[in-house]
Amino acid sequence: MPEQSPLEPAEGDPFGPHNLPYGVFSTPAEPDRRRLGVRIGDHVLDAGAAAHALGSPYSALLDRPSLDPLMGAGRTAWRDVRRALTAWVTVPAHRPAIEPLLYPLDTVTLHLPYEVADYVDFYASEHHATNVGRIFRPDGAALTPNWKHLPIGYHGRAGTVVVSGTEVRRPSGQRRAPTDAAPAFGPSVKLDIEAEVGFVVGTPSRQGDPVPLTSFRDHVFGLSLLNDWSARDIQAWEYVPLGPFLGKSFATSVSAWVTPLEALDAARVAPPARTEPLLPYLDDADDEEPGGFDLRISVALNGEVISEPPFSTMYWTAAQQLAHMTVNGASLRTGDLFASGTVSGADRAQRGSLLELTWNGTEPLELGSGKRAFLADGDVVTLTAWAPGPDGTRVGLGEVTGRIAAA
Amino acid sequence: MPEQSPLEPAEGDPFGPHNLPYGVFSTPAEPDRRRLGVRIGDHVLDAGAAAHALGSPYSALLDRPSLDPLMGAGRTAWRDVRRALTAWVTVPAHRPAIEPLLYPLDTVTLHLPYEVADYVDFYASEHHATNVGRIFRPDGAALTPNWKHLPIGYHGRAGTVVVSGTEVRRPSGQRRAPTDAAPAFGPSVKLDIEAEVGFVVGTPSRQGDPVPLTSFRDHVFGLSLLNDWSARDIQAWEYVPLGPFLGKSFATSVSAWVTPLEALDAARVAPPARTEPLLPYLDDADDEEPGGFDLRISVALNGEVISEPPFSTMYWTAAQQLAHMTVNGASLRTGDLFASGTVSGADRAQRGSLLELTWNGTEPLELGSGKRAFLADGDVVTLTAWAPGPDGTRVGLGEVTGRIAAA
Repeated sequence: MPEQSPLEPAEGDPFGPHNLPYGVFSTPAEPDRRRLGVRIGDHVLDAGAAAHALGSPYSALLDRPSLDPLMGAGRTAWRDVRRALTAWVTVPAHRPAIEPLLYPLDTVTLHLPYEVADYVDFYASEHHATNVGRIFRPDGAALTPNWKHLPIGYHGRAGTVVVSGTEVRRPSGQRRAPTDAAPAFGPSVKLDIEAEVGFVVGTPSRQGDPVPLTSFRDHVFGLSLLNDWSARDIQAWEYVPLGPFLGKSFATSVSAWVTPLEALDAARVAPPARTEPLLPYLDDADDEEPGGFDLRISVALNGEVISEPPFSTMYWTAAQQLAHMTVNGASLRTGDLFASGTVSGADRAQRGSLLELTWNGTEPLELGSGKRAFLADGDVVTLTAWAPGPDGTRVGLGEVTGRIAAA
Repeated sequence: MPEQSPLEPAEGDPFGPHNLPYGVFSTPAEPDRRRLGVRIGDHVLDAGAAAHALGSPYSALLDRPSLDPLMGAGRTAWRDVRRALTAWVTVPAHRPAIEPLLYPLDTVTLHLPYEVADYVDFYASEHHATNVGRIFRPDGAALTPNWKHLPIGYHGRAGTVVVSGTEVRRPSGQRRAPTDAAPAFGPSVKLDIEAEVGFVVGTPSRQGDPVPLTSFRDHVFGLSLLNDWSARDIQAWEYVPLGPFLGKSFATSVSAWVTPLEALDAARVAPPARTEPLLPYLDDADDEEPGGFDLRISVALNGEVISEPPFSTMYWTAAQQLAHMTVNGASLRTGDLFASGTVSGADRAQRGSLLELTWNGTEPLELGSGKRAFLADGDVVTLTAWAPGPDGTRVGLGEVTGRIAAA
């Protein structure tokens, strides 16, 4: 029986030719040479080498150490390059040229695929915002008065976004419980995760020019799974009145693979019904394309699934977030990353943070690896996700994983 | 009488050879060629060309279109390059080589001198925080309980930092007064300024490694004057619970000149006495070098001085801000910019924002250009500043100016 070609992943493989996410990799033979790659099954194709081998006009975009040039090339280039890549991995005549340019995933090192320009984190799940409001502000309304009128967001630290697999050191900082006389300093005792989906901007925009809802596809290149590590004790003491800062800025992990928007065409769904009228720049009721994405996220702690947040329940869509973020004239740059905020569904088993899953530590999880209110040193958190693809396939999103190192 | 050399600015010129701030410029003859320049009096020296002309080993740092390579070269290089530049503009034997490389300032275009990596805005003036607290939260304590324990800060949008002289379009957005039934959309009606001082990071740090108070000079390259334009109506509606976002992200203006830290050695002063004990990582009581800077800022609206905020009154120092920003292990990158927050003194005539100067519009300013609660279209705001230099000189900081364009 002839050996199976890496170009023929098994039936049902979520990284088949209908997916083709982008990443940046290096090989043990040339560890300092970063190359743009495309994932097919359990292999990565050296996209620049493939372009040269096949005499493709896209070698200038693909023979690069970063995804940035392709991201900045615009929507038409994104479509054309994806068509070319699809042909390269599916047309049998290309096999002799392509197969030698494939590397098994477990032999390569994956890097942050793009340079993060500005990083914005939203707060778009009604279930999450309601849970957090109940926990942090038990005497007030769970949702602030603005929540249903605009997608609340804030800027995070772009310089500490790291690729999946990077170890995360437990942060130290100030905390002060309401009963403490003075703040104390030390390693965070409430280290948490936030299961999120990140959207990566390709096409920039000019300062002063808002990007309307309908231009979402012209600017957004693709999706990264994202874990916005959070130190709840640091955050609770610092965040009034100017928002989260050190409780979030120590690390944000993203998947090594960027899923092109086009791969998720079959996963578009309508967002939940809006319960407050929206101002015109946010009103997507008549949009031809539904703004939500049916992504099924899974959160594993030390290998045990602790939550399955459904992205389809997000109140605010990525297109609304983009329109809001730019309505004041703020410009976009290639590499801008904006994240959904924690994805939490209505059920307890769908909550995307330990804060919610353990109700601020009062209801610890009983796991094979022990009891957990928040993260312990050595814990490994892994997010995975998939979405419906064309013709009954599944589109896999790259995983994002990280291990907690002691302070 | 022989013509005065541009290398001999008038006695008392705040841009004499004791200052030598850095900028990036282009000439009308070569508008697309950006060059690193050093200001002397009313001229700019092409620093790269000077390095070549004099056979300097620093041409690799100076013959560049950006200040980034020099900023990233570290403290020893900063000192050595500054010594070399001082010799080039003061030693008479260099004049024949140097004078042809000087351009009158009014003939060149100045550009953003460095690429902003992450932008953080602090809130370090006790007078400002107290005023804002009284205006926005009249029923609560003016200062939040954390204010005297940590320098409150948040991340801003790096991609919309613009160089002095860039026109600022009035932003549109949502606002909702407490008496409004629903939010409204439109151009901001409370467009404001914030007079601030920005500190620019040169030397990066590793993720996981805090930068202590005493390492301030190893990491911070210099200072930029900064105007953090603010739409108060947008900000007031959006900022709970995650902090300012669109009310600030449309534009932040910085001076075209970066003043090297060394030029301000004579301006170091002790900060105000601390009224709460500080945790060790923020406690600067025993530091050899005082953490404050005696900078005298002037705010002009359409040419009329409306405020003179004294930077020496800032409660939190830049060294404390740097130590706080990294104590959780957040890394620094070359080009990180952190700003002081609005500089306001104790007196009304020392307030650094219109919000405070007009008490949220209730006490408008009567100016030659008309009555102002907040900024009108066409208004020009210019910040300037100086500090005591060596031997009775004054060190000028570059101005930051901007004109408001209609929405």
